[in-house]
Amino acid sequence: MTQKISSDRIRIEFGRKLRLGFVGGGRDSVIGGTHLAASRVDGFYELTAGVFSVDHAVSRATADAEFVASDRVYSDFNDMARVESERDDGIDVVTIAAPPNLHFPIAKSFLECGIDVICEKPMTRSLSEAEELDRLVLANDRLFCLTHCYTGYPMVRHAREMIRNGELGTIRIAEGELAAGDPGVSFEPEDPDDRHWRFRRDTMGEGAILGEVSSHAHHLLTYVVGDDASEVSAELNTFVERREVFDNSYVMLRFENGARGRVWGSYVAAGNDHGLWFRIFGDKGNLTWVQEDPEVLWFKPIGKAAIRIAKGYGQLSGAADRASRLRPGHPEGYILAFGNLYSDFACAVAARKLGKPYHHFLDLLPNTLDGLRTMAHIEAAVESNSRNGEWVHVAPIRKAQRRDAEE
Amino acid sequence: MTQKISSDRIRIEFGRKLRLGFVGGGRDSVIGGTHLAASRVDGFYELTAGVFSVDHAVSRATADAEFVASDRVYSDFNDMARVESERDDGIDVVTIAAPPNLHFPIAKSFLECGIDVICEKPMTRSLSEAEELDRLVLANDRLFCLTHCYTGYPMVRHAREMIRNGELGTIRIAEGELAAGDPGVSFEPEDPDDRHWRFRRDTMGEGAILGEVSSHAHHLLTYVVGDDASEVSAELNTFVERREVFDNSYVMLRFENGARGRVWGSYVAAGNDHGLWFRIFGDKGNLTWVQEDPEVLWFKPIGKAAIRIAKGYGQLSGAADRASRLRPGHPEGYILAFGNLYSDFACAVAARKLGKPYHHFLDLLPNTLDGLRTMAHIEAAVESNSRNGEWVHVAPIRKAQRRDAEE
Amino acid sequence: MTQKISSDRIRIEFGRKLRLGFVGGGRDSVIGGTHLAASRVDGFYELTAGVFSVDHAVSRATADAEFVASDRVYSDFNDMARVESERDDGIDVVTIAAPPNLHFPIAKSFLECGIDVICEKPMTRSLSEAEELDRLVLANDRLFCLTHCYTGYPMVRHAREMIRNGELGTIRIAEGELAAGDPGVSFEPEDPDDRHWRFRRDTMGEGAILGEVSSHAHHLLTYVVGDDASEVSAELNTFVERREVFDNSYVMLRFENGARGRVWGSYVAAGNDHGLWFRIFGDKGNLTWVQEDPEVLWFKPIGKAAIRIAKGYGQLSGAADRASRLRPGHPEGYILAFGNLYSDFACAVAARKLGKPYHHFLDLLPNTLDGLRTMAHIEAAVESNSRNGEWVHVAPIRKAQRRDAEE
Amino acid sequence: MTQKISSDRIRIEFGRKLRLGFVGGGRDSVIGGTHLAASRVDGFYELTAGVFSVDHAVSRATADAEFVASDRVYSDFNDMARVESERDDGIDVVTIAAPPNLHFPIAKSFLECGIDVICEKPMTRSLSEAEELDRLVLANDRLFCLTHCYTGYPMVRHAREMIRNGELGTIRIAEGELAAGDPGVSFEPEDPDDRHWRFRRDTMGEGAILGEVSSHAHHLLTYVVGDDASEVSAELNTFVERREVFDNSYVMLRFENGARGRVWGSYVAAGNDHGLWFRIFGDKGNLTWVQEDPEVLWFKPIGKAAIRIAKGYGQLSGAADRASRLRPGHPEGYILAFGNLYSDFACAVAARKLGKPYHHFLDLLPNTLDGLRTMAHIEAAVESNSRNGEWVHVAPIRKAQRRDAEE
Repeated sequence: MTQKISSDRIRIEFGRKLRLGFVGGGRDSVIGGTHLAASRVDGFYELTAGVFSVDHAVSRATADAEFVASDRVYSDFNDMARVESERDDGIDVVTIAAPPNLHFPIAKSFLECGIDVICEKPMTRSLSEAEELDRLVLANDRLFCLTHCYTGYPMVRHAREMIRNGELGTIRIAEGELAAGDPGVSFEPEDPDDRHWRFRRDTMGEGAILGEVSSHAHHLLTYVVGDDASEVSAELNTFVERREVFDNSYVMLRFENGARGRVWGSYVAAGNDHGLWFRIFGDKGNLTWVQEDPEVLWFKPIGKAAIRIAKGYGQLSGAADRASRLRPGHPEGYILAFGNLYSDFACAVAARKLGKPYHHFLDLLPNTLDGLRTMAHIEAAVESNSRNGEWVHVAPIRKAQRRDAEE
Repeated sequence: MTQKISSDRIRIEFGRKLRLGFVGGGRDSVIGGTHLAASRVDGFYELTAGVFSVDHAVSRATADAEFVASDRVYSDFNDMARVESERDDGIDVVTIAAPPNLHFPIAKSFLECGIDVICEKPMTRSLSEAEELDRLVLANDRLFCLTHCYTGYPMVRHAREMIRNGELGTIRIAEGELAAGDPGVSFEPEDPDDRHWRFRRDTMGEGAILGEVSSHAHHLLTYVVGDDASEVSAELNTFVERREVFDNSYVMLRFENGARGRVWGSYVAAGNDHGLWFRIFGDKGNLTWVQEDPEVLWFKPIGKAAIRIAKGYGQLSGAADRASRLRPGHPEGYILAFGNLYSDFACAVAARKLGKPYHHFLDLLPNTLDGLRTMAHIEAAVESNSRNGEWVHVAPIRKAQRRDAEE
Repeated sequence: MTQKISSDRIRIEFGRKLRLGFVGGGRDSVIGGTHLAASRVDGFYELTAGVFSVDHAVSRATADAEFVASDRVYSDFNDMARVESERDDGIDVVTIAAPPNLHFPIAKSFLECGIDVICEKPMTRSLSEAEELDRLVLANDRLFCLTHCYTGYPMVRHAREMIRNGELGTIRIAEGELAAGDPGVSFEPEDPDDRHWRFRRDTMGEGAILGEVSSHAHHLLTYVVGDDASEVSAELNTFVERREVFDNSYVMLRFENGARGRVWGSYVAAGNDHGLWFRIFGDKGNLTWVQEDPEVLWFKPIGKAAIRIAKGYGQLSGAADRASRLRPGHPEGYILAFGNLYSDFACAVAARKLGKPYHHFLDLLPNTLDGLRTMAHIEAAVESNSRNGEWVHVAPIRKAQRRDAEE
Repeated sequence: MTQKISSDRIRIEFGRKLRLGFVGGGRDSVIGGTHLAASRVDGFYELTAGVFSVDHAVSRATADAEFVASDRVYSDFNDMARVESERDDGIDVVTIAAPPNLHFPIAKSFLECGIDVICEKPMTRSLSEAEELDRLVLANDRLFCLTHCYTGYPMVRHAREMIRNGELGTIRIAEGELAAGDPGVSFEPEDPDDRHWRFRRDTMGEGAILGEVSSHAHHLLTYVVGDDASEVSAELNTFVERREVFDNSYVMLRFENGARGRVWGSYVAAGNDHGLWFRIFGDKGNLTWVQEDPEVLWFKPIGKAAIRIAKGYGQLSGAADRASRLRPGHPEGYILAFGNLYSDFACAVAARKLGKPYHHFLDLLPNTLDGLRTMAHIEAAVESNSRNGEWVHVAPIRKAQRRDAEE
């Protein structure tokens, strides 16, 4: 296991684990266990406080199983933000793992109490809300990480570096997918109460698939390519009877430099597991990465044999190397990738509290800029679909000021 | 090697090889050697006559190297059709491997002289020409095979059978690609004379990529799904400087039953080899087939482990079994797949000449109906692209009469 | 993430994390970080005390970076065992991650102080030492886990269940390898001080490769097959100049039921990463598992298509299901697999301290019986090699009494 | 399709197809169809005469289906050799596809009549018979090709070139397998008449598996490594009840230069298809080739990323390039590989008859030297097995004189 000397220095000086709070992520959630494991992997955090569920019994049971003191279990996130920010041993960081419609008010509450935020995607419900959240992060001088978790994979980070370094030449084609399938793709139950919340218009909005599913694929593209489409054309459909929202999204992309691309998000890719991958073609070759085989990045330079890039051969960029922990031939998997987001953020938070340079720990982490882009993309795609696929311009991103300077 | 008893009966009764003529396919062509090898694999044909090239020296050299008698080398395909049809030992079948703009006049000439035709794709230059060719096949009572060669792969044929048998349930999503790359994708030479004929408007028409490249992917989809899109939306682009035609085509598909799909054709997928594959999702699972690993068909039923379908386990459909020659574990490859088209067609031609049933030998072979569909698809896609991606209805296919009854 | 309800009950009743001590595993070790991450993944342990390195400065630095109190850092493992066993808040479990020649004295010290033990492999230096250790575990009534870490992978556990359930029929052939390669395989430095400790006779003994490398492959075979060879024939070689020990081991196996097998261990498989895999053939089919693609178990039943077994389809055995945490399509990797050993052991230790049934948490964990088998295998292989590959009987295992009854 | 200009020159000068005879290979044989297709692929041969089966009715039916004149169907191979050698239009080449025990007398008969020979493997029944056959080839001044068919794959030929060029450095480890499985591996029928001839001692000899199965794997190793083992240790077993011969062979190899290796041949690898592959490790990296994915050669240089070598990138050796016919991305498969042996041999035979240089067409073809090596290997392995796996020296090969000079 790679010894992370630089982070060891921060750990030793900081002298304790960061105290982590959770809003959401209880034993009744899908994503809670993943965040917990990701936060634990490198031993930077200890779970200290939370509103783990809207069901208080679940919240308490989660706290007990995670050894959280009973006086640190709250029933209201505003209380939690206020009380924790007033304690000497209050939380350093909060993770927001609640449903998307609550991301904004929860984030607002903790930011205004001076607590750094790790937030699930999609960042908000709308572009305007995203702009307001971005402004709040700046106004309160906080650190913010959006958990587009797949960016924690070393090979994703390496792909980004290769493209930045021009190894693909000029990008021409960018394709991404998250086409998932599971038993639910074939039907929804007749009793409305049995139907999955994901497929109700009231909780999610008709275009929810763009935030819940496609956004991972779209974000990965923008992350590795370093640019976003300026125009989109979308075809959104509902295949499964009784679903109130779209369950398949096809979006075509036009980039300003002339590149073209496509993003597919789906709940009806029956038989698929997670179905997340991207491939990028420049004029010098292509890169392909498949999340279900994440230790490998395929590089096919034009006119030469394909190369199977993996860690361990002294060829990796610093960005990928820093994200790898194990010897060659030992798969690191999803939790360690997700853990890279948590650990990079921990280093930034701790270094900042110690008055040390911290920006370099943030440079690979998705933040409000990524959230703004996703929201602008979604709004344009929904508009295009409502106009039978007409090409629609994506709103330009208006970022709050300081971030630009920092980055 | 599987002994093909039923075809042996026809061979024994017919008592000789079929005499095969070529128009095109000389030593200066890309595709000639492939057709030759495909025609030889099962020993049904002997190459007997031809206009192998517009360059008569090349034509003669090809004839010499292929042991074709010098009096059977023609300089004009009309002469060849007439003379061969008048000889007692004239050719039984002609292969048309000339450039696409000549397919129609060559086919017309041989059909009208009573000679059965094997024709390269795309069938014609336009839908109206395709309709006229279809009419000529009927009027002259000839057999006609369009060499969408990838349909000869046993696993493609098995995919078609599985879908027909409902093993995927209702089809929801159909995706296909032929995204090729090679050194030519990065640039075209400055001297116009050095530029590839594929990328000149005068020879090919601006939308040539749809016939030359995408049509394989589009055809495979319609072949295995058994249906074609009724509406398309297309985005055609030219990436490489100095090219006069589109070198990338994205087409989106709407099927009448509500299914959706996408077809990608490309000359700019730098680093790819041939890049041909399809995947079809129904409500019961999906099928994926990749031409570069053609012995395998991946079946992922919903809620169960993936199955790697291959020949040899007594599980294959008759259509796939008939197309397989070798024991399990022995890859058959492209030429044997292509050979299946030649050999099925040979059995039909010979059986018909013997006055025996022959339609069952044709039921897996692409014919003028497939050519009609491709032309209608291309014309709709070009129209859509010219209207900035608007959805355009595909013209309904008007087939000549008798074929419907036959099939 | 699968909620582990049954383990939650134990966590809640136990009410705190288990206190974990380390002997070895400091920042200067290869394996320390892996053990740390594995112990953290499920939040069962907190690192509390240790002798992390023979270099006391490294030991202290490790403690500081891991937030271990300075009075819990020891310079001698005997002191640590005694002092910790006398503290009210002393460690519950010790991990032994020191070099193999120290495993026995360290384990003895902690067992005699009443502390449960997690021990790296190979368990001891000799069969007689292994027998003594096995006796000590029984005499002191302790729990003991041998970290043959790859047994934590769900698919390894599933393979074992399938074989137990007869899905392969009678086992005929069992093959395993750990054939590793890295830059070191091509040479050893001229200066003896620069040569790797792995390749010195004084520290490791000439047959060290059998314990360090082959033992993982050999153990996996016996683990999934449920039996060990009764005779071996070995060919041990040294390829790299200046190495004092064997760097390649070929061992052939004869099982009592007539099955045959082979184990290959290597440091000279230049270009390989870790090179660990097994394949087992019965009369009904075969199973293949490759550690570098660990989420998949290939099952090829005789006369049928291959099946790609993975989690998530309601088809997994309980043993594999219990070891899986994430949704289908999310790779779990090596650390989570290793973590399964830590977490199963934690449940057993906590349940036992609570006076509850705990044996079912141990039934998939390697223990002294596995260590005994490995030592008997190694001694027979060394003997065979010294007699130019003659077949040598493996000493029958004499286990201490109670364990047999328990298991 | 690559135009083979140099072979075109020979074709044009020779002016006709080579006349090919068959002994064996009728419609009742497994291998006949494969030889036929391989001989046809490039159009060098026409099947002209034969004793296709011991069953004369089958022999005639085969002739009829293959359009062989009835006066060229013989019932005795000696007659055939004599009569054909006396005809002006007699066969140029004979293919021997009869059972192994007849290879020698058939080859002798045709060689003595001045006819060049293509012979199935294993070449003979014994080393002494092999030596006699080698002498006969020389004495009669004939060309001889042993159809170790897998050597026709371009990637096998490229592996050989890479090793010759030192790209792997010094070879240390060489491993090969042909571990096949099919329904027959689980049982033999109770009625002796229903049992497969492969598993009878009278027809095949107890060690038949070494000639029938292992020899492909062993030969590939020697072919690509360019050397053979000087000592072997063998473990031969019979797993399936009622079989009279061994159905599993493990052979260990010691090479004179210190390299080590293993060969596995099996009929009991239940569930496998053909199971043929090799991997070679030198001190600079390794090569792996798997017959079921034959278009790819994996090269893993030490300390660098793995490279997927395939045709089409201007990186192939001449030996591999000459054996490739199709554009990148078009799988060539087994018949085209086998066809390379037939076509190289045709060029040699025709060039020699034209009085032109022909040795360069033979340099990649297995010949009597390969047959001698296999026989020496088999006899040593049988001896080792009978002495419970003792290491046995392989007899040095005594080749007839001229060949050494030629090659």
